[in-house]
Amino acid sequence: MARVSQAHLDARRRQILDGARRCFTRNGFHATSMQDVFQETGLSSGAVYRYFRGKNDLITAVAEEAFERMRLAFESASHEAPLRPLADVIDGVLTHVLEEQARTSGVDRAGAFAELIVQVWSETLRDEGLAATLNAGYDRMRAMWGKVVRTYQEAGHLRADVPTDHLVRALMALVQGFILQQAVFKDVEAELRSGLRALLSPHA
Amino acid sequence: MARVSQAHLDARRRQILDGARRCFTRNGFHATSMQDVFQETGLSSGAVYRYFRGKNDLITAVAEEAFERMRLAFESASHEAPLRPLADVIDGVLTHVLEEQARTSGVDRAGAFAELIVQVWSETLRDEGLAATLNAGYDRMRAMWGKVVRTYQEAGHLRADVPTDHLVRALMALVQGFILQQAVFKDVEAELRSGLRALLSPHA
Repeated sequence: MARVSQAHLDARRRQILDGARRCFTRNGFHATSMQDVFQETGLSSGAVYRYFRGKNDLITAVAEEAFERMRLAFESASHEAPLRPLADVIDGVLTHVLEEQARTSGVDRAGAFAELIVQVWSETLRDEGLAATLNAGYDRMRAMWGKVVRTYQEAGHLRADVPTDHLVRALMALVQGFILQQAVFKDVEAELRSGLRALLSPHA
Repeated sequence: MARVSQAHLDARRRQILDGARRCFTRNGFHATSMQDVFQETGLSSGAVYRYFRGKNDLITAVAEEAFERMRLAFESASHEAPLRPLADVIDGVLTHVLEEQARTSGVDRAGAFAELIVQVWSETLRDEGLAATLNAGYDRMRAMWGKVVRTYQEAGHLRADVPTDHLVRALMALVQGFILQQAVFKDVEAELRSGLRALLSPHA
């Protein structure tokens, strides 16, 4: 039997994951079948099932990756320009990641990736495996946000008399609400951006 | 043929809607079948289908009603104590409506109704009829919020150099993020509440 290199295994996994993300972003999670994934990747069912047990496994992996990308983007944004207005950090990262994910999925609409995220949220309510993966992702996201928020608290940009984690929760709720609005309504980015700035910077 | 009074028709419609909401809140939208609704209401399929064409019609009606309840609750909260801290208005209404909807659905968990709302969001991405209903609901909600936010702007509690509607969008995103967190995580209300207050009232 031929030995298959780790690089080959990784590349194949990457190929499947990219194809699945394209399908999910284009048509939504529910309307995508495993057949669609075989066709999109040009791989046989046997080849795909060697890496992923099924659609739920694929959605978990796609969600996990999107999460990680957003976390890293927030982290590097906060390092690059520490104490930039929080609204700018949130808006910049969110817009950048949603657009990038949609673009690399071959979809010309930043809202398409937001739609996928909303579907994943709903799915976590029915799928314990997905919920566990997402919870682990949220924990890492909260830890990263915790560091950022603490810096803002120490500099007097956010209230220091409130536990960091409470502010993190509220800020994450804001980010999630933004994603929802971009999915459900269209062309609301500019209004959201302006409203967010006004809300988080109470003085003009 | 016997004449059926409007009062009777209304009561029957109410009975079906309440039964459907109980099913949806208890088991989620997807896991509920029309059979479950017949059983929960004690009505025949013929009786139910006279009022609703199917599950999507029922979810639309339940969603519309929840929306309207939340809108009215925000409206009366802002009249009762004008210019109360916005965080208190948002938190009070949200907690009250989510708990009330869960309780009147016979479910002992405020998060259960939040879960239903998240499922509805996801469903609107696939169902244009539901999306249209929800958009109409959002328009009414935005109009109501617009009046409230304008009062806060005029009193100097929110920035007046930003269009009212932009602030409304950002505040609604915050509310939606709250609903999502209550659905996906458990027991986060207290932390969210504290974080929201600190975010919207930057001075202790």
